Amino acid sequence: MKEYVFKLEMKVRDYECDLQGVVNNSNYQRYMEHTRHEFLESLGENFGTMHAAGIDAFVSSVSIQFRQSLRSGDAFISCLNIKKNGPKLEFEQDIYRASDGALATKGKVESVVVVNGKLTRGEYFDELLKKLQ
Amino acid sequence: MKEYVFKLEMKVRDYECDLQGVVNNSNYQRYMEHTRHEFLESLGENFGTMHAAGIDAFVSSVSIQFRQSLRSGDAFISCLNIKKNGPKLEFEQDIYRASDGALATKGKVESVVVVNGKLTRGEYFDELLKKLQ
Amino acid sequence: MKEYVFKLEMKVRDYECDLQGVVNNSNYQRYMEHTRHEFLESLGENFGTMHAAGIDAFVSSVSIQFRQSLRSGDAFISCLNIKKNGPKLEFEQDIYRASDGALATKGKVESVVVVNGKLTRGEYFDELLKKLQ
Amino acid sequence: MKEYVFKLEMKVRDYECDLQGVVNNSNYQRYMEHTRHEFLESLGENFGTMHAAGIDAFVSSVSIQFRQSLRSGDAFISCLNIKKNGPKLEFEQDIYRASDGALATKGKVESVVVVNGKLTRGEYFDELLKKLQ
Repeated sequence: MKEYVFKLEMKVRDYECDLQGVVNNSNYQRYMEHTRHEFLESLGENFGTMHAAGIDAFVSSVSIQFRQSLRSGDAFISCLNIKKNGPKLEFEQDIYRASDGALATKGKVESVVVVNGKLTRGEYFDELLKKLQ
Repeated sequence: MKEYVFKLEMKVRDYECDLQGVVNNSNYQRYMEHTRHEFLESLGENFGTMHAAGIDAFVSSVSIQFRQSLRSGDAFISCLNIKKNGPKLEFEQDIYRASDGALATKGKVESVVVVNGKLTRGEYFDELLKKLQ
Repeated sequence: MKEYVFKLEMKVRDYECDLQGVVNNSNYQRYMEHTRHEFLESLGENFGTMHAAGIDAFVSSVSIQFRQSLRSGDAFISCLNIKKNGPKLEFEQDIYRASDGALATKGKVESVVVVNGKLTRGEYFDELLKKLQ
Repeated sequence: MKEYVFKLEMKVRDYECDLQGVVNNSNYQRYMEHTRHEFLESLGENFGTMHAAGIDAFVSSVSIQFRQSLRSGDAFISCLNIKKNGPKLEFEQDIYRASDGALATKGKVESVVVVNGKLTRGEYFDELLKKLQ
């Protein structure tokens, strides 16, 4: 497995599986969101508290490649790397099945920050990245 | 079918079905919520607008009996009656499969209104019910 | 806190919160389902494997009282007791906020077992309960 | 608005909005899935029936650009075009707010067909596309 700045172990919940017997595709996007927010918490931030303070990170694009379906009972590791690109924060987000390390999904997410309704140059992300060093 | 003050026709979405091939139980609660909110809209209200104005209806209890599972492709009719009981608004909420009128779920929901963080005597509901007459 | 045969610590995921800024009611039903299925796994069973073998546990009724809303960042403990009642298995399922032990929801779930499409007398549950002793 | 082979009008359900007061990003993926499956039904197919017959369409990649957030009360039009590309079926899927025609999301989805567990050359899609002509 390659290196990541943040990893979160989770487990499939059966209501996330659809009639094909595998995790419904939309749930990987949810796993990825939860991973970003837990990453934020690991840096002392909280998404709800940010929103209450008028700071909102919005996702501007998501792309996901689906490689291996996760199923009932599967544990998985949701991994994340970040890179600043202009006003955007780019997340590389990969999910691996825990049992054998198989790559389940490969994702890319771009995010921008809006403060009190105004798009910013991503200064919030700059401050955040300093905490990583 | 018995009489109801509000009915909403909906259709199963496949992501709502779980690995048993039927609509996951939690989704009936979602259907019921959406029906209440559409009922509100039919009276000229909107749940999001209410929240922005500091008025929040909160569910205090839910009970649901599951009779017939809905499946991929099923249309259904979500029905609602209401009754004021002290500060609470009681919703009788039943869901019928459209194809044959079979009762899918039978539900009861109790709701209270909080204004600016304070529990009310349900005056909001009293005003709402006047619009029904 | 009273005694339970099974407890699971979980944490609110932000996508589970709705526009009122609290966990949407339907998600407590999901938390409760996941807790039952993890309880099953603790006894060596798996819900997906059961389904593939033609054994399906179906929820016949759910009732939930909502006491304290969980919010972004909240950890919580989802607790469960069980009791056989005729062909049904009755689950007492309570959820507590981890930070202060406040009761978030109080629930009751009844479940039946269908084998190859036929309702059973709950023999599957009898075998399961033996493993608890 | 550009031309599409299939359009579906839907409405935001409040449980789909998150604590930021807008539709959670993952739900657009769900809207897009439901649109594909309704498109299938418009051609006389059903996703659940296909699965029962051993034919499964799996999404191999999704990419979505988020332009305008949908909110409580918003109706929207979910639109779809398709194109065969080797064994894959490529869906162009765009969602517009109904009130003003604003583009909410712009998406691309690639799908493959697995029959009895084996990846196919997409013959199922070829047959499907004939029905469109």
